[in-house]
Amino acid sequence: MKNSSREFRIDGHKVKTLAQKYSTPIYCYSLKKIKTKLNNFKKNFKKINPLICFSVKSNSNKFLLKEIGKLGLGADVVSIGELVRALNSGIKPNQIVFSGVGKTVNEIDYAIRKKILLINAESKSEILEIEKIAKYQKKIVNIGIRLNPNIDAETLNQISTGKKENKFGVLEKTFINLVNYSKKSKNLNLRCLSVHIGSQILNVKPYQKMLNVLEKIIKKTNYHFEYIDLGGGMGIDYKNNNKELDLKKYSFLIKKFQIKNTSKIIFEPGRSIIGNSGFLISKIIYIKEGHKKDFIILDAAMNDFMRPALYKATHRIIPAQKKNNKTRKIYEFVGPICESTDKFLTTKNFQKLNEKDLIIICDVGAYGMSLSSNYNLRPKVMELLIKNSEVKIISKRQTLNDLI
Amino acid sequence: MKNSSREFRIDGHKVKTLAQKYSTPIYCYSLKKIKTKLNNFKKNFKKINPLICFSVKSNSNKFLLKEIGKLGLGADVVSIGELVRALNSGIKPNQIVFSGVGKTVNEIDYAIRKKILLINAESKSEILEIEKIAKYQKKIVNIGIRLNPNIDAETLNQISTGKKENKFGVLEKTFINLVNYSKKSKNLNLRCLSVHIGSQILNVKPYQKMLNVLEKIIKKTNYHFEYIDLGGGMGIDYKNNNKELDLKKYSFLIKKFQIKNTSKIIFEPGRSIIGNSGFLISKIIYIKEGHKKDFIILDAAMNDFMRPALYKATHRIIPAQKKNNKTRKIYEFVGPICESTDKFLTTKNFQKLNEKDLIIICDVGAYGMSLSSNYNLRPKVMELLIKNSEVKIISKRQTLNDLI
Repeated sequence: MKNSSREFRIDGHKVKTLAQKYSTPIYCYSLKKIKTKLNNFKKNFKKINPLICFSVKSNSNKFLLKEIGKLGLGADVVSIGELVRALNSGIKPNQIVFSGVGKTVNEIDYAIRKKILLINAESKSEILEIEKIAKYQKKIVNIGIRLNPNIDAETLNQISTGKKENKFGVLEKTFINLVNYSKKSKNLNLRCLSVHIGSQILNVKPYQKMLNVLEKIIKKTNYHFEYIDLGGGMGIDYKNNNKELDLKKYSFLIKKFQIKNTSKIIFEPGRSIIGNSGFLISKIIYIKEGHKKDFIILDAAMNDFMRPALYKATHRIIPAQKKNNKTRKIYEFVGPICESTDKFLTTKNFQKLNEKDLIIICDVGAYGMSLSSNYNLRPKVMELLIKNSEVKIISKRQTLNDLI
Repeated sequence: MKNSSREFRIDGHKVKTLAQKYSTPIYCYSLKKIKTKLNNFKKNFKKINPLICFSVKSNSNKFLLKEIGKLGLGADVVSIGELVRALNSGIKPNQIVFSGVGKTVNEIDYAIRKKILLINAESKSEILEIEKIAKYQKKIVNIGIRLNPNIDAETLNQISTGKKENKFGVLEKTFINLVNYSKKSKNLNLRCLSVHIGSQILNVKPYQKMLNVLEKIIKKTNYHFEYIDLGGGMGIDYKNNNKELDLKKYSFLIKKFQIKNTSKIIFEPGRSIIGNSGFLISKIIYIKEGHKKDFIILDAAMNDFMRPALYKATHRIIPAQKKNNKTRKIYEFVGPICESTDKFLTTKNFQKLNEKDLIIICDVGAYGMSLSSNYNLRPKVMELLIKNSEVKIISKRQTLNDLI
């Protein structure tokens, strides 16, 4: 990502050259950046030696998953589709955990047959369903139970998951009942307590609270959990201001927690591994003068990248070629879709832009392509992976024929 | 839609039977309802005799488009994908208008070759682009210019499109300049003034204001527009309380407007034709007791139906089989996706529900399937069309193999 010249490069590859060769829009990922983030993650949590299960929903590209598998990560899956893809990518069943509030009979049946590490159950009904299928298959199934710790993750409401009003996990009383139920079951092997309080968390305090809640509840259950699955949610830097979750601090808190609780820790990171590694390269179709601002109309739209429309998320936009002429105008970057929500960013003090210029929407590696759609019958864009000197097409651009 | 029995039927077909035969979730449309809505629309606007161009983005299923074409409607398209699909569905080029702020060279070129009725341009840059391509093709191209009338449509902010801060159309001064420019061009035939102030508008007042603005501007331009394209936005009843836009009143206002402006009116309705005709049939996977409410976990999710997550839209949910036992509990209908946004409705006084019961999310004909995605690697659901006694599969359920 060194950009000594005026041309923005992704691991040495000029964005301009990529756009000329492959057209736009393009999702482009840096394997180097993924590795750097993962190494940093591992380093910070070294003393804990966690099992790291990559959150497949954050980015389910099959080639990326293969690379992630090669780096030794397991997978956190939330559907049979993700489970099959993780297995096909070479991730070992004993490194896969299955999360989600609505696992179907079919999904549970398949997961049991594949002997995955853990099915993390989220309700009494689900546990009964797992037990029934296990009995039918004459198996003993490894499960976890997800606790709803009633913690405010201090993140966006839409991505908070650990408050009592959220649909995830079970509240304390039910949790204790389900632990007792599972202990007695002949077909369930309760191995894990799982918890996940939300996404894009930038402060360790909610995690501290979460660990305190876990400590109390574990005491109450009087049960040794072989695994504690702490989920993910580690917030990344979206503003290029180095404000991200202090993993070192979080690690320290967990280490303290482990003095009394010797369980193996599982993490389910997605965004914190892959978020910063993705770039959405887009071309300016038109620039239109509006009231007190110029609309920069891109060839990328909300169907390609939903986070701004869905979560009001802010992603940095940078020019592919740096120039020194700043504009005094307000720029509003929008897509061509016929919706007011199809808007990426409103900003000041940008460099002066021209039609056909290339821009880059940053940090789109997580919840970018995985949330994309064909709205307005727009074909899905191409995905590239930069692997050292190699530029690899990891998903083809859809053609009109694919769609029509 | 008569439901004299306790079983909910769509044009005589029991939802329960459809679910048993085709599994769930299913989008199911009633052709009868589409026809009723369209006839009602036509009846209300009879004195205006408008050209009705169906908004393809609201629902782009190819079989539905064929039916809509057979009913004599034209198409409002916003991408080359939608244009090709409209043409393939048998809709005639001279009944197709092309809208959107970011039409590419490729899209304009194709639209000109196909001799569609109108390319409604939204910026000076676009008009220059159209002119350039027309010159190259040695053609005279029919265009419209979209005005941004700076009117508050008094609808949800996300679906308001006619305020000066919105990206759509051009403001008055630019509009007049572009009319003058187009008049002089040898390759442009300016035939239309187009305008669209937003979606799901329930009150005629914003339309009244819009017509007043048009009247003034037309006077200023001193130009006879052969067509006035008033867009769509006519609000429908989502609450089953008969509160929808009074089309009769709107028609009356337009008739008055036409005394001085004899232009042919174009409408671009989508939701108002197809919104109420769609039902999303879903099965309850689990019911989970939460804090002060029960979570009703459905097999349909936000990837299947985005409007509640994206616009905080409220859609009625009804049981497939009516019973008399009301519950005092609060029910929160959610999907199985690992996001707190994956939530459809929180409601009181519902009838008591059980796991495996079928429910129906209502009025999902518009912006339902067209906004769907494969998030969480969930296959796209099936679409059925009820055509009298016939149940027609109009898009197959995606299989895991399609996805993996």
